[in-house]
Amino acid sequence: LKDDTCRIDGFKFSAVPAGIKKAGSSRLDMGLIVADSPVTAVGITTTNLVFAAPVAITRQRLKGGLCSAVLMNSGNANAYTGEQGEKDALDLTAEVAKNLDIDAGLVVPMSTGVIGNPLPMERMAQRIPDLVNGLDPGSLQDVARAIMTTDTTPKTVCRDADLSIGAFRIIGVGKGSGMIAPNMATMLAVIMTDVRADAKFLKEALIEASSMSLNAMTVDGDTSTNDTLLLMAGGRSNARELVTNADKQSFADLLNAVCMDLARQLIKDGEGATKLVEVHVCGAPDSQAARKVARTISESLLVKTAFFGEDPNWGRIICAAGRAGVDFDPDRLDLFIGTVPIVRQGSLVPDDWESPAHNVMKAPEFSVTLDMNNGDADARFLTTDLSREYVSINADYRS
Amino acid sequence: LKDDTCRIDGFKFSAVPAGIKKAGSSRLDMGLIVADSPVTAVGITTTNLVFAAPVAITRQRLKGGLCSAVLMNSGNANAYTGEQGEKDALDLTAEVAKNLDIDAGLVVPMSTGVIGNPLPMERMAQRIPDLVNGLDPGSLQDVARAIMTTDTTPKTVCRDADLSIGAFRIIGVGKGSGMIAPNMATMLAVIMTDVRADAKFLKEALIEASSMSLNAMTVDGDTSTNDTLLLMAGGRSNARELVTNADKQSFADLLNAVCMDLARQLIKDGEGATKLVEVHVCGAPDSQAARKVARTISESLLVKTAFFGEDPNWGRIICAAGRAGVDFDPDRLDLFIGTVPIVRQGSLVPDDWESPAHNVMKAPEFSVTLDMNNGDADARFLTTDLSREYVSINADYRS
Repeated sequence: LKDDTCRIDGFKFSAVPAGIKKAGSSRLDMGLIVADSPVTAVGITTTNLVFAAPVAITRQRLKGGLCSAVLMNSGNANAYTGEQGEKDALDLTAEVAKNLDIDAGLVVPMSTGVIGNPLPMERMAQRIPDLVNGLDPGSLQDVARAIMTTDTTPKTVCRDADLSIGAFRIIGVGKGSGMIAPNMATMLAVIMTDVRADAKFLKEALIEASSMSLNAMTVDGDTSTNDTLLLMAGGRSNARELVTNADKQSFADLLNAVCMDLARQLIKDGEGATKLVEVHVCGAPDSQAARKVARTISESLLVKTAFFGEDPNWGRIICAAGRAGVDFDPDRLDLFIGTVPIVRQGSLVPDDWESPAHNVMKAPEFSVTLDMNNGDADARFLTTDLSREYVSINADYRS
Repeated sequence: LKDDTCRIDGFKFSAVPAGIKKAGSSRLDMGLIVADSPVTAVGITTTNLVFAAPVAITRQRLKGGLCSAVLMNSGNANAYTGEQGEKDALDLTAEVAKNLDIDAGLVVPMSTGVIGNPLPMERMAQRIPDLVNGLDPGSLQDVARAIMTTDTTPKTVCRDADLSIGAFRIIGVGKGSGMIAPNMATMLAVIMTDVRADAKFLKEALIEASSMSLNAMTVDGDTSTNDTLLLMAGGRSNARELVTNADKQSFADLLNAVCMDLARQLIKDGEGATKLVEVHVCGAPDSQAARKVARTISESLLVKTAFFGEDPNWGRIICAAGRAGVDFDPDRLDLFIGTVPIVRQGSLVPDDWESPAHNVMKAPEFSVTLDMNNGDADARFLTTDLSREYVSINADYRS
């Protein structure tokens, strides 16, 4: 069964079970994305000082700005695995390159899973011929499944829009559930488009799009060793090129929408999450201040457990804002849960807010707005509640 | 039943039920500590920008360096309650002063509980005569009970040591369970001693003692609006004065021990905690770097849930260190759980570590040591695991 909605001219996909986490398992855990010809590629990787072997190789190989294939796996992060880990990732990409008859420098590796274990090289290497033979333009969902760890759903996105020169498409595939924090997430994501553009513009557009979405969300505040977001543009000889500013803006808008869609899928699938909450901080003196406050609220365990309990415990939100390291006047704050005003100019509103705010929080998605009334800058963060299930998932993950 | 082990010359204690959280409740929720005469007093209060009315008053009143009484309550933090909150705290301390026939400026207020609700002034004020009448040197445990919120046990400490001029004592009472993070905790604590010393020395000693204990622990990373740590020295006319450096050192050592004892009691009673873990970072280039790494590990949800699962998932510890914002060489790290070596110079040890490390983690208390092998500085943090129970407690706290 192939999914026709998640395909794009110039790219093919494949996935196989390689028994990475457990020998003999039939679970898809190795995926491959291949462009018909080398395409322009730009990436963003983890800010963690401890970064995985595939991240090191990806950074190196993206310097040339070209990429033909992405080899992905779950079940093992190949992180903190030393020189052997780097050699393993190089060997696997070389094997893929040999089977595709391309240069190994055009193959980018991405891994996710447990930190510190060597890859089961023999099992992985022997599945690469099948992986290459299985390439098909309709198999993106299989790749999405192959990179799932504690994710409960595969994550793909497909969006279309128009340029002055005609319609174009951006598709994406990603994973991420826990260890989700800005810069970036335990996130692997590959975004592909059928237009062409120079690497400089693409990189700027990707940074901009991720700063408002994939770099503005948190499940648990942990930044992984393996986060990688890759954008591949082109993929076939007749792909149209972005030249005019209007076309570039159309592309940037659609890329923002694609990244936000992926971000929402990731956060909704946050480990144990029962709520998706947008924390909107506005009226800030500058966007950095807004972002710091939004992030501190979004990461507060007390706020997140109150979300889980559907409890409009607004004092915890104000308290978290107060420790964000941003200077502000507490007596000027306005606070809303959904559209229900709770605090106005630092004072609790006289009307009944408790029951309406509680009703807002019963929904699976809602927003919290903190207006600092001290400027024009704002920031939006996506976060989850913190549930008993999060604890269960992470206490038992390895076993 | 009076507890004779927790008394100290020159101080009396009392507690009453005032129905602060719920009218008519028989639970002790208002406590009073009174010195026979004004004593030297120094304090440390929250770093949260949003601080409660009692904190504002305490800061103001401690400027004089003298204090006679501490009025404490649970059930309501009197935080983010505006001018009314400040007036309420002033009125209550004035009522205490009137009943004790002392200056109101000598009475320090401390509150803990829910943020944003006005104090039930009528119920509280009418209990103050009883509170004063009940003063007794053996009632410190009652005060400890009166300030409990989600604490499951009252927390007191009593230690004796010798000076060149004879024996002396330090006792303390505190509360704190959730919203525990450095600088400081949802913590209220009062420490009393029967020696005299100048305020400057006492403040330095208190900062030093708390930096290694009460300011070096975390349950959930949230810094409260109400944290206050008070040290009262003297309390009667024949209290001995600290003069020699040897005596001052003896006092500082005992104060460290008292603060560490309180810190351990707080962290062991951390909301839902089943493990007390000391995170020791050594071999750091400077103590600030050591502290940052220790704190980041101690606050990582993924590390804390692994502690709960008794899972030696060491990759999460290294990963947390990597995002601490400290520059280090991952290939030089040594990591131990208890005394079991897991990583040496950046490589997993060849011996079996999994089962011995798991055995270490089965105990209710254990340590994790990360040696950066890059200097002589170190830092120790106390933390807890993160359990399903933590989530339950905080999702349901207000209801």
